[in-house]
Amino acid sequence: MKATIMYGAGDVRVENVADPVIQHPTDAIVRTVRTCVCGSDLHPYHSMKPGRHGQSMGHELLGVVEETGSEVSTVKKGDLVIAPFAWSDNTCPICRDGFQTACPHGGFYANRQTAGLQAELSRIPLADGSLVVVPGVTERDEAVLPSLLTLSDVYLTGYHAAHMARIRPGQTVTVVGDGAVGLSAVLAAKQLGAERIILMGRHTDRTDLGVEWGATDVVAERGEEGIQKVLDLTEGYGSHVVLEAVGLMPAYEQSYRVARTGGVISRVGVPQYEEAGVGFGSLFGRNLTLTGGPAPVRAYIEDAIPLVLDGTIDPGRVFDRTYTLDETATAYADMDARTTLKAFITV
Amino acid sequence: MKATIMYGAGDVRVENVADPVIQHPTDAIVRTVRTCVCGSDLHPYHSMKPGRHGQSMGHELLGVVEETGSEVSTVKKGDLVIAPFAWSDNTCPICRDGFQTACPHGGFYANRQTAGLQAELSRIPLADGSLVVVPGVTERDEAVLPSLLTLSDVYLTGYHAAHMARIRPGQTVTVVGDGAVGLSAVLAAKQLGAERIILMGRHTDRTDLGVEWGATDVVAERGEEGIQKVLDLTEGYGSHVVLEAVGLMPAYEQSYRVARTGGVISRVGVPQYEEAGVGFGSLFGRNLTLTGGPAPVRAYIEDAIPLVLDGTIDPGRVFDRTYTLDETATAYADMDARTTLKAFITV
Repeated sequence: MKATIMYGAGDVRVENVADPVIQHPTDAIVRTVRTCVCGSDLHPYHSMKPGRHGQSMGHELLGVVEETGSEVSTVKKGDLVIAPFAWSDNTCPICRDGFQTACPHGGFYANRQTAGLQAELSRIPLADGSLVVVPGVTERDEAVLPSLLTLSDVYLTGYHAAHMARIRPGQTVTVVGDGAVGLSAVLAAKQLGAERIILMGRHTDRTDLGVEWGATDVVAERGEEGIQKVLDLTEGYGSHVVLEAVGLMPAYEQSYRVARTGGVISRVGVPQYEEAGVGFGSLFGRNLTLTGGPAPVRAYIEDAIPLVLDGTIDPGRVFDRTYTLDETATAYADMDARTTLKAFITV
Repeated sequence: MKATIMYGAGDVRVENVADPVIQHPTDAIVRTVRTCVCGSDLHPYHSMKPGRHGQSMGHELLGVVEETGSEVSTVKKGDLVIAPFAWSDNTCPICRDGFQTACPHGGFYANRQTAGLQAELSRIPLADGSLVVVPGVTERDEAVLPSLLTLSDVYLTGYHAAHMARIRPGQTVTVVGDGAVGLSAVLAAKQLGAERIILMGRHTDRTDLGVEWGATDVVAERGEEGIQKVLDLTEGYGSHVVLEAVGLMPAYEQSYRVARTGGVISRVGVPQYEEAGVGFGSLFGRNLTLTGGPAPVRAYIEDAIPLVLDGTIDPGRVFDRTYTLDETATAYADMDARTTLKAFITV
């Protein structure tokens, strides 16, 4: 089968590799219908040292079950399924708390344990916990496939930011970052009842979608100027909630600067830093709450499917260009060049 | 009148100074009935450089109104009042949000703007916002005075930690620190329905009070050993909530190490650091929430007074020794030597 392998920064190849097989009775083999490239895939695309042994890529998947292990009971051959970007048993105390990304028996894709999902076929561990069937839909229902695929990561990552911030109706929410996750956070904030949504971003083709999804204000300025603009828009008080969908230190600092006293900063951009300000001068003095982390999309996916199917939300609009699996290297390059917001890959 | 002045580390004196006078029509002059020494007063007691110009001290006060400015309407001469440790207008949007410690028109005591409250008389700015009358009680009701004084800071600081952590019935709560705030946090966690309360502290005279107030387990071990003990007590998962009442970096690190995935760390110990771990390896990877800050006790005080008066809570038990105002230097020395948990000062 074909699979996507990265051999170093800027070097993505689609190659023939051995088909995956059932290794454990809890595994399933899924044939990919749609996959995509994540903003986080661009981190190694920038920094990976070249090497002979490539890195398998991808963690977003909408597919059809091909085969199941003997202990799999909740999915069967032929089911259209969404694979959340982390696999988990979905039964342990941590999963029952709703934090499946930290399941002690689960893990992430694209490592020595499990291959990446930008491939024709994938082995999904703990399939009962890790796959969610989309009832009544087939791969021929093309119109809903993009939005269903976003439930594997991007939309529900934006949703997680909003959920962890406990957005309440009437609040002002600022979203830092106009990438696909930031725009998803706008859509989720609107769903949770935010009254005012300030989107910080300077790519008008992207912020335009943010406005369609509920952003009431767009702040294109960056740094001090951008901070001042948000404060001006909020009578000097700042934003009840800040959803940080970037992961870089300037975005962190901007977030606490535009947060209202007593407000919440919710991060879903994977931090590219370990230490940051949390003392009296940053978080503590103004009783700011810092929350967020890897989105346990498994916890939200079943509630989101009906909203996609009935058209309440259309998160698939983050996909602005479609590629075949053979074109995946181009998809990476285009996302890296920011000519594509998020690449949709048909397999 | 007599007032407490610090001239350098270890050098506290009670001296005669000019009586305070009404400076603004919104001021009140309050005669002190009881005051006390705070753990945070010990920071300058350790570090203050000696100098000729002393530093006025104190921010906890139970007193009787002596005089009010022309615009003061909610308190009058003769009222027994509690002064929260920060003054505020209690009417602005930030105060209405319940974060009076960050009132843009308010401030803290013991600085150039307002003197400290370890004195016979104090000028209270914005008296309508900054003082709370204790109805039906006089300074002769000695039995309730200690607990009422704790509503000025220590008990409601512990309460703030528990409140910001949104403790829910049935949760496991770990309290880091067995000082007066940590013990108050135990009492507050119990009030909010915590099922299991693990108190990390090694002074048995203090942890004994914690056990009386609801601690179900005491962990005397520190560092790695203490962390492992908490994990062992929680089947390896850690604590839903950690209340951090110390403010030093080892306590911060201990807090995220003993927190359960998806859990909350709520800090009320004033951080003696600005930067700390918040990235994938500390907070983000396990979806930990960091919250807390200076306690807006003004927001909680009216609800707490009836609980003190009807005996539901007895937070005044943190005071284990009484001093006169003239003995304040001894009170500092005893608290610093940890022979006194919290010094109660009669004036």
